[in-house]
Amino acid sequence: MATSPPAEIGMRLEDIDTPALLIDLDSFERNLRRMVDSLRGLPVRLRPHAKTHKCPQIALRQIALGAVGVCCQKVSEAEALVEGGVNDVLVSNEVVGARKLDRLAALAHRAQVAVCVDDAANVDELDAAARKAGVRFDVLVEIDVGAGRCGVAPGRPALALAQRVLGRENLRFAGLQAYHGAAQHLREGSARRAAIGAAVGRVRDTVQLLADHGIGCTWVTGGGTGTYLLEAASGAYQEVQPGSYVFMDADYARNLDAPEASPRFELSLFVLTTVMSRPSVDRAVVDAGLKASSVDAGLPLVHDRPGLIYAQATDEHGILRAAPGAALPTLGEKLLLVPGHCDPTVNLYDWYVCVRAGRVEALWPITARGAVG
Amino acid sequence: MATSPPAEIGMRLEDIDTPALLIDLDSFERNLRRMVDSLRGLPVRLRPHAKTHKCPQIALRQIALGAVGVCCQKVSEAEALVEGGVNDVLVSNEVVGARKLDRLAALAHRAQVAVCVDDAANVDELDAAARKAGVRFDVLVEIDVGAGRCGVAPGRPALALAQRVLGRENLRFAGLQAYHGAAQHLREGSARRAAIGAAVGRVRDTVQLLADHGIGCTWVTGGGTGTYLLEAASGAYQEVQPGSYVFMDADYARNLDAPEASPRFELSLFVLTTVMSRPSVDRAVVDAGLKASSVDAGLPLVHDRPGLIYAQATDEHGILRAAPGAALPTLGEKLLLVPGHCDPTVNLYDWYVCVRAGRVEALWPITARGAVG
Repeated sequence: MATSPPAEIGMRLEDIDTPALLIDLDSFERNLRRMVDSLRGLPVRLRPHAKTHKCPQIALRQIALGAVGVCCQKVSEAEALVEGGVNDVLVSNEVVGARKLDRLAALAHRAQVAVCVDDAANVDELDAAARKAGVRFDVLVEIDVGAGRCGVAPGRPALALAQRVLGRENLRFAGLQAYHGAAQHLREGSARRAAIGAAVGRVRDTVQLLADHGIGCTWVTGGGTGTYLLEAASGAYQEVQPGSYVFMDADYARNLDAPEASPRFELSLFVLTTVMSRPSVDRAVVDAGLKASSVDAGLPLVHDRPGLIYAQATDEHGILRAAPGAALPTLGEKLLLVPGHCDPTVNLYDWYVCVRAGRVEALWPITARGAVG
Repeated sequence: MATSPPAEIGMRLEDIDTPALLIDLDSFERNLRRMVDSLRGLPVRLRPHAKTHKCPQIALRQIALGAVGVCCQKVSEAEALVEGGVNDVLVSNEVVGARKLDRLAALAHRAQVAVCVDDAANVDELDAAARKAGVRFDVLVEIDVGAGRCGVAPGRPALALAQRVLGRENLRFAGLQAYHGAAQHLREGSARRAAIGAAVGRVRDTVQLLADHGIGCTWVTGGGTGTYLLEAASGAYQEVQPGSYVFMDADYARNLDAPEASPRFELSLFVLTTVMSRPSVDRAVVDAGLKASSVDAGLPLVHDRPGLIYAQATDEHGILRAAPGAALPTLGEKLLLVPGHCDPTVNLYDWYVCVRAGRVEALWPITARGAVG
């Protein structure tokens, strides 16, 4: 851990050094419970995506509330999660190359590990790594259900890959990864329903084709915060993978939700920032720029201060402007920003500063921060 | 340090785990020498900006070649640099709040520390912190020479602030910070010359006004990689602060340089990435997305592979397309990416993997990574 935490337990909110990444524990805990409540009675398991939070303390809280385990995208994330006590991890992504696969196999001695494939040669190197380490991997065939990223085409290509997995001694064909990432941020509920409707059709066709060839498939997994209730209600998925619901962000807040399609998750993640310059009447400068809040999905929003606009981010500075009639903050004043996109913003910090009732209650290290490998 | 390095010394380039942040040592060392050569005979000192590299090993190399010290933007960056052996640091930014100022004052016991101000109340809290710690700060008054970010207006407001600094026992008025950040990336050389010409006029007027009031000013500092030769040749600056020249990036490569205005710095920073999915004939997917290369100034470029286009970044994936006639890379193939913007990309990694002649020669920890406070 390169940097020391910007706060101490018991400290008042206003004394926290900035920029700091804050969790509002009340909102965060309500989000965790709302997710579980929203799935009650539906025939799916919850496997939250840890790529959002990168933190074993949060993963363990999700599991304590009923999640079967977590997902992550990288072997190094899986390592940090298992090191932190998580015992069931799905790497919802392809893992390529001997060095990474050896590490994944070593991890399979310590926890339940599953991984995705979308390539025949990769199936072979996965089997070789598992054999070498004396383990057996659960393998999901990833199908492209509309996102246009990884995954083989549904139907025959998926069948061929499943058959190849079945022919390998150190692999177990576990099911299908069918995640539609691009659908999560379609703004209109109707567009999200259409996209997931099409994805469900592709899943059903593939599961039927597998059945026609004597291959059972009881683990279909996918569905993010923007659509998971659609996958959960479809009957075609046995597991959902929402991640962002724990925090939410400015980008998700732009989704126009059909009330029946999503519970009201709350913003629970903030960047605490200080006004460090008031050089003119037309602007205030805060100490949180693009190294403190990822701008890939837009600039952060100023929380709970109507008329105050975060207008520009440079590396270490943010420039605030005031709408007509609104006042700019004074030098030294602290403000809360809502990140544009939670996952890559979390990736900029080593610590969560967890706050309740205006006091620091906990400090959680973000041990899978920077775990890109 | 959360993550272990993705390579070992002596390893071949092709065996490095990905994504990894690579320095091409030959190009990097040529950049360091070219900067020194380009300033020979000009009446300015070199104080490179360490916000780019965040690494004491690099700062010490710059100082060994003649730099007087380094700049940084944050107290926590200064702490990491001093911890790594750097003994002269200018925080080219305002520092606000008692906790941060106490840390800065503590640092002034261990190294030569200077800091900028643009506010009268901040002068007072700076003096109080220095008195409490029993140190004396060198203070530069920051003037806004056209960037529209921090800094008081040139002329009378700068004079008033300098006089306030002079009246404080534990502060020494050291000079002016006059950095025009917005000018660095103006694409046309003529536009950069016009912007710096105007900045130089503002500096001269302010220095003259100070002199008229009996205040000597022999430390005017500013100038980034895109313009530093203009400041250096002006006679109005005694110090330049280029940072990005050590690495360069895709954004700086879009500057149209007048050959007389800038030496040819080379790209020396790369993200090594692996093709992790080849799901269809129209795309390859690499393992470096926006958590591996900051996209604030545009997508990365594929290095030395004409016709191959990095078309889209998601959190952990990059999608490559091929121009007509170009071939997509195969599964497992490794490629070099040129980051869109070097500073925030460096901020995503814990280690530089330093390569020469196809082998790993050194691993340098990026100890000021994430030092936003």
